[in-house]
Amino acid sequence: MSGSTYGNIFKITTWGESHGSAIGVVVDGCPAGLSLCEEDIQKFLDRRKPGSSQFTTQRKESDSVEILSGVFEGKTTGTPISLLVKNTSQRSSDYSDIASYYRPGHADYTFDMKYGFRDYRGGGRSSGRETIGRVAAGAIASKLLAELGITVTAYTEAIGPIRINPEHFNIEEARSNQTGMPDAEASAKAEVYLKECIEKLDSAGGVVSCIVKNLPAGIGEPVFDKLDANLGKAIMSIGAVKAFEVGDGIKVASTNGSLNNDSFCMTQGKIAKKTNHAGGILGGISDGSDVIIKAYFKPTPSIFQEQETVNKNGEDIKINIKGRHDPIVVTRAVVVVEAMTAITILDSLLQNMTSRLDGIKNFYRS
Amino acid sequence: MSGSTYGNIFKITTWGESHGSAIGVVVDGCPAGLSLCEEDIQKFLDRRKPGSSQFTTQRKESDSVEILSGVFEGKTTGTPISLLVKNTSQRSSDYSDIASYYRPGHADYTFDMKYGFRDYRGGGRSSGRETIGRVAAGAIASKLLAELGITVTAYTEAIGPIRINPEHFNIEEARSNQTGMPDAEASAKAEVYLKECIEKLDSAGGVVSCIVKNLPAGIGEPVFDKLDANLGKAIMSIGAVKAFEVGDGIKVASTNGSLNNDSFCMTQGKIAKKTNHAGGILGGISDGSDVIIKAYFKPTPSIFQEQETVNKNGEDIKINIKGRHDPIVVTRAVVVVEAMTAITILDSLLQNMTSRLDGIKNFYRS
Amino acid sequence: MSGSTYGNIFKITTWGESHGSAIGVVVDGCPAGLSLCEEDIQKFLDRRKPGSSQFTTQRKESDSVEILSGVFEGKTTGTPISLLVKNTSQRSSDYSDIASYYRPGHADYTFDMKYGFRDYRGGGRSSGRETIGRVAAGAIASKLLAELGITVTAYTEAIGPIRINPEHFNIEEARSNQTGMPDAEASAKAEVYLKECIEKLDSAGGVVSCIVKNLPAGIGEPVFDKLDANLGKAIMSIGAVKAFEVGDGIKVASTNGSLNNDSFCMTQGKIAKKTNHAGGILGGISDGSDVIIKAYFKPTPSIFQEQETVNKNGEDIKINIKGRHDPIVVTRAVVVVEAMTAITILDSLLQNMTSRLDGIKNFYRS
Amino acid sequence: MSGSTYGNIFKITTWGESHGSAIGVVVDGCPAGLSLCEEDIQKFLDRRKPGSSQFTTQRKESDSVEILSGVFEGKTTGTPISLLVKNTSQRSSDYSDIASYYRPGHADYTFDMKYGFRDYRGGGRSSGRETIGRVAAGAIASKLLAELGITVTAYTEAIGPIRINPEHFNIEEARSNQTGMPDAEASAKAEVYLKECIEKLDSAGGVVSCIVKNLPAGIGEPVFDKLDANLGKAIMSIGAVKAFEVGDGIKVASTNGSLNNDSFCMTQGKIAKKTNHAGGILGGISDGSDVIIKAYFKPTPSIFQEQETVNKNGEDIKINIKGRHDPIVVTRAVVVVEAMTAITILDSLLQNMTSRLDGIKNFYRS
Repeated sequence: MSGSTYGNIFKITTWGESHGSAIGVVVDGCPAGLSLCEEDIQKFLDRRKPGSSQFTTQRKESDSVEILSGVFEGKTTGTPISLLVKNTSQRSSDYSDIASYYRPGHADYTFDMKYGFRDYRGGGRSSGRETIGRVAAGAIASKLLAELGITVTAYTEAIGPIRINPEHFNIEEARSNQTGMPDAEASAKAEVYLKECIEKLDSAGGVVSCIVKNLPAGIGEPVFDKLDANLGKAIMSIGAVKAFEVGDGIKVASTNGSLNNDSFCMTQGKIAKKTNHAGGILGGISDGSDVIIKAYFKPTPSIFQEQETVNKNGEDIKINIKGRHDPIVVTRAVVVVEAMTAITILDSLLQNMTSRLDGIKNFYRS
Repeated sequence: MSGSTYGNIFKITTWGESHGSAIGVVVDGCPAGLSLCEEDIQKFLDRRKPGSSQFTTQRKESDSVEILSGVFEGKTTGTPISLLVKNTSQRSSDYSDIASYYRPGHADYTFDMKYGFRDYRGGGRSSGRETIGRVAAGAIASKLLAELGITVTAYTEAIGPIRINPEHFNIEEARSNQTGMPDAEASAKAEVYLKECIEKLDSAGGVVSCIVKNLPAGIGEPVFDKLDANLGKAIMSIGAVKAFEVGDGIKVASTNGSLNNDSFCMTQGKIAKKTNHAGGILGGISDGSDVIIKAYFKPTPSIFQEQETVNKNGEDIKINIKGRHDPIVVTRAVVVVEAMTAITILDSLLQNMTSRLDGIKNFYRS
Repeated sequence: MSGSTYGNIFKITTWGESHGSAIGVVVDGCPAGLSLCEEDIQKFLDRRKPGSSQFTTQRKESDSVEILSGVFEGKTTGTPISLLVKNTSQRSSDYSDIASYYRPGHADYTFDMKYGFRDYRGGGRSSGRETIGRVAAGAIASKLLAELGITVTAYTEAIGPIRINPEHFNIEEARSNQTGMPDAEASAKAEVYLKECIEKLDSAGGVVSCIVKNLPAGIGEPVFDKLDANLGKAIMSIGAVKAFEVGDGIKVASTNGSLNNDSFCMTQGKIAKKTNHAGGILGGISDGSDVIIKAYFKPTPSIFQEQETVNKNGEDIKINIKGRHDPIVVTRAVVVVEAMTAITILDSLLQNMTSRLDGIKNFYRS
Repeated sequence: MSGSTYGNIFKITTWGESHGSAIGVVVDGCPAGLSLCEEDIQKFLDRRKPGSSQFTTQRKESDSVEILSGVFEGKTTGTPISLLVKNTSQRSSDYSDIASYYRPGHADYTFDMKYGFRDYRGGGRSSGRETIGRVAAGAIASKLLAELGITVTAYTEAIGPIRINPEHFNIEEARSNQTGMPDAEASAKAEVYLKECIEKLDSAGGVVSCIVKNLPAGIGEPVFDKLDANLGKAIMSIGAVKAFEVGDGIKVASTNGSLNNDSFCMTQGKIAKKTNHAGGILGGISDGSDVIIKAYFKPTPSIFQEQETVNKNGEDIKINIKGRHDPIVVTRAVVVVEAMTAITILDSLLQNMTSRLDGIKNFYRS
């Protein structure tokens, strides 16, 4: 029960360490009949690939995915889809001295306490490379959601103190610049800010937003498996995320009901809402509006300044971390947020299919 | 799979609607040998009971718990503990006109979309009364944690714009006043604020904080079942919560690594941290510091001002909600946050017991 | 994780001991919109009620069920259905001396080893009364299956050495006589045999068969959740069952492929099978033929002959068990087998709804 | 939820088709600190390898396992162990005509009904090659059980009508001959029988027994997760198994309580049983005696005689199956039964660690 499986019906199991021979995921419960090829998955992986901008580690990894099972004649078979990415750039020697001490802000100490020892090469299982499996599975979930007309789109909302201006919103911009910000002006400022961080041997945090469009009303379960509870878990399970919001998020705590309630109204013959403070979820169930969530990432803990810590002999020491580290995790994490959201939304849609007797009768009658 | 079960080893299943004959929970997986009586549970339930202050609904419910199974001669038997609370004050007539329309900010519309109809009496399953089962189960989890020396303490951090001053912190104060704030001065201000809200026929939001002390390092799983991911789900699954933070939460996004990293240091011969920005969790696993989380609650959606909405015939209408409603959910939700945190922490401790071969060998050798 | 929950989508959690105040079940994941009243459930419970024949314990229990939640205006709401049966005839004094020793064939010793102590009143959680929850949940599952045209029928196949003659098969007979055998002649012989057992202060075993009709082909999952694997678990989880068969069962081990293979053939324009050695399941998935399973029950371990055992002081002793015990469990277990089968079949049908992309697209398009 | 994951704490997820590029398993929840190398796993895989006797398919597969993750410096890390075996002998052309019709006794038809199409190459996911993942995971479980002094041993009990003589029992014999029978005389007879089957272009069924020694009393959960229920599911999930027994199995149905009850007695200062009709499990929980189970396998459905079936156009046809097929599955299935038993026993041991408060307190105090 080391918790490497996520999802109830569309179920993913990730495996692999930063410096093992490969990393991967098994996707169980993907319905049969979805067209799927490696290129569908590769384009998602390419969005998180290192070395693609000046703000990501210069470690070179092609991160090429192989489909080992579950696809036959170009379609999913309904049985497990096994995806594998070989690790090709494991310079373990960079990490040799890490074995003796605990890096601040990292999981070194907690892994040691839990397991009695750890794979100290590049963080082992706590490495960001673990997210490769999530992104690969998310590519499949996104493709399936697209068949239902549902889109999931994540982007960088803020880097350090720089936030996007919603009036400038342009998702094409986010997909082509180095920050993932859908606002060219904010992105330019963020680049300057990140360069300053690098010069100061420091790192930056940031915010990723994600929007789900065209999700029908009625998706999610009313008690523990609320859609926002499941999204909360999905997002908080991404390394470095320290806060999660749905809709207006923390702002709701200081407002009043008269301002926060979204009035229902008839729009083009359909029930809609005049506002969307709720972020598309009421009582844990989708209300037909856009689902809007935000993930808050801490700054990369690996910084090149001298830091204080302790070693395994219980001595206070000073360290200088070496190696290849991103000055910010947000830019590469955008696609991870998108992937985890897509997986969660799809899983909720599948779970919802058994919520009504009439739906079941129609299904088996046809 | 309507998601009424929570937990992996210490597993709770809640049931019941606001206006059914009773409400309850089955706790499966509670270890044998814990002393347990109804009073242990009742004192937790009394903390969420309505009618106990001027800021909670005047609906009178004794909320008396009965233990129906799983306890023999004053100790838990290891088999399911069934707990039941009778509903005694169901004035369904108050809700008769709700059946025809969708209240803004409520789950009326989403339940209808999901299930094809709903129990419109007092919110049915989406009622705050569902949390009775959580609190009852949380009382058991807290008692068991206490046997291991671990404490879980929640309190009101903010009501509307009024926040506590950490320098005034006094948990006894929180347990005796009407706001749950551990700061008499802030509490007094909050009372004034809430009275204003009531006068304006409006409602207020707020923040609940929760601190876990004495949790050993090494608890939590490294990937999807990160301790903070599971806490995130636990807290986000409470109705009206719209944001979740661990440690410094959203602030981490705008700071730098050099400021956010907590240095390790030797303190009294043990490994500790100089600061606790991380909120006691690194890489999803407890680091031995206090675990600190925050839940952001929206204002009660039931307000007595006129509101706009639509009815089931698809007509725009104006409504005036009647009935008995809290002007704020936070004061009664404090114990719910504490309960969900205790359940999650206990479950993680139980899961962790199989993480090392040597621990297993010791267990079965003795 | 004491394992009191069964099912993936249609999920039941049973609770309660033989001599607690009540016993019950929570059914989570029942679709909304099923007509349901207490009488639907009561008629299943009446089939397992004690005291209804000379071959069952004379303990008098009305076993009246109450629906506490999940049904509104005569229909299931999609949220948990909590069912409760009060224990009314707990003569705990009958069991006082059992506390000091371990009854042969019972779970006394194993509970003590597992939990460190046990509820010794009437077997506590290991009592046959635990099956009340299963039967109540099975009544709901059966009713829902009937909406899809699927029937589940169990009956007594054998009592001790007396087997039914398939040529005499008459299910009405099984529902009206005291043995549950669908064969009046065999039933009469079995009654004589059981009376002999009672006279000898002994007990008898037997076999229960169960047939599922009109299950569509394609239900079940191909690897670990094979339909027959899940049925095997469901049936083996009933106390006193020591063997499970599907189709020809153990006979297949001594036959040849040429005799055991069921040829496919066209019948009335549809694909069918000429024979059904497989019992309706191929590769873990239903093939459209009747699903046929058998459960083998051991004789009631509580017999009134003197027996040898040990007490808690580690002394060899001789005992004479008192109390009220059935000379055979099979007659009352028929409805338990039917219930567990119905629950498993329904759960598999619900799981199957997400197996194909086209089915999902149709579902969400309509 | 296509059911490719098995286990609660020690959790395995298998993937791969007969004719894909590889087949494998992810083992999640294996405790940290177990010495593990590829050879530990390979020796289990070699026991199921084809081509090792005249009674197995002559398809040549080296079935060499690679450990891709979860082991560092020779020890398990507590994180997922990914194991991969490349398929090297995929002569898909042998299967080209199978695509158009449904082989009797195979899962061809049921897969088509479930998924809308199937991977027809060698059975795809329903191929016996799926068990490679089970056996690889079972090797790890067995190694871990050995650390606790627990052994799991399976062997061929019967082939067609030929049964072993318990008085001749010699497990070394079973490991060296071609039948897996621990009885040289029976094995010789079985070889003659199998040659006759081959000559008649027919196939044979058989029985596999499995014994677990040194399992402590108290393992297993009392209701749905009874140890025998979980073993029943584990064994029934192996392709071609049609019946499962624990202890005396089906015989219990025709005996009496006085003969079937196992008396407890003091033996060398410990509680033991005079007999073991129960097969080591009472009330779903281990009683300290040997756990004894049996699996009944049907004859290989692929026989070389002409058979009747239907094709996808709905026409009655006659077929002659070609390709490479074992005349009996039992000899290669012995290690699969052993693996599934080991995984189930280990998982139950891990689950049991949280059954008592005192055990938990001892664990966290040390």
